[in-house]
Amino acid sequence: MAVQRFNLGEPTGGLERTLAHGIETQLFWGKHVMLSALACAPSAAGELHHHEEEQWVVMLEGSGVLIVGQEELDVGPGDVCHIPPGMLHNFIAGPAGARILDIFGPPRSAYREPGGRGFGASS
Amino acid sequence: MAVQRFNLGEPTGGLERTLAHGIETQLFWGKHVMLSALACAPSAAGELHHHEEEQWVVMLEGSGVLIVGQEELDVGPGDVCHIPPGMLHNFIAGPAGARILDIFGPPRSAYREPGGRGFGASS
Repeated sequence: MAVQRFNLGEPTGGLERTLAHGIETQLFWGKHVMLSALACAPSAAGELHHHEEEQWVVMLEGSGVLIVGQEELDVGPGDVCHIPPGMLHNFIAGPAGARILDIFGPPRSAYREPGGRGFGASS
Repeated sequence: MAVQRFNLGEPTGGLERTLAHGIETQLFWGKHVMLSALACAPSAAGELHHHEEEQWVVMLEGSGVLIVGQEELDVGPGDVCHIPPGMLHNFIAGPAGARILDIFGPPRSAYREPGGRGFGASS
């Protein structure tokens, strides 16, 4: 069986999903981990939400403000931040937009549905 | 409680571990996911090993050959490859070395021990 692979520069082959206006992602997953390769348009804003899956946010390019619980974090290239299970969070892209790799463990079931939209039901 | 965070350009604050001669990492983890920020010296070679935890390899810089089961993959910046649970794998860095983000789900228990060395017991 071929190794599942993609490139962050131009991810292809994942399940496409629109998370919010100006925030598109491609989703890839195995048994225990889901990866979400996001492209955020300039100043695109997500929605405050939470879920039981643990999340790590990896900033690939651009900048923005990551809200995690009560904290507002200015983030840029190479920054990696942890979002514990159940913690409210959101992201607002900076003026040049952002590319992000989100990591979920376990995979988010709401994100495995073809044709889905949004950040999934809060749990 | 402060958000757990680090930067891939110069990761600090993780648990340091030597995986092999010329392959150093810093480990960060939560409940379901462990991140391993590796620096590989030029031509540094790992060891063929396997474990029950799922793994994703994210190439940040440099190049190398990633062995996954029967496949030998030439990898470079931005490449992301999946290593299913239990699959034999190894990495040999290219002439300029490599920086890699490895993702494990669930966290590898062998990697949570301070002072540990190597790729952990095969399971």
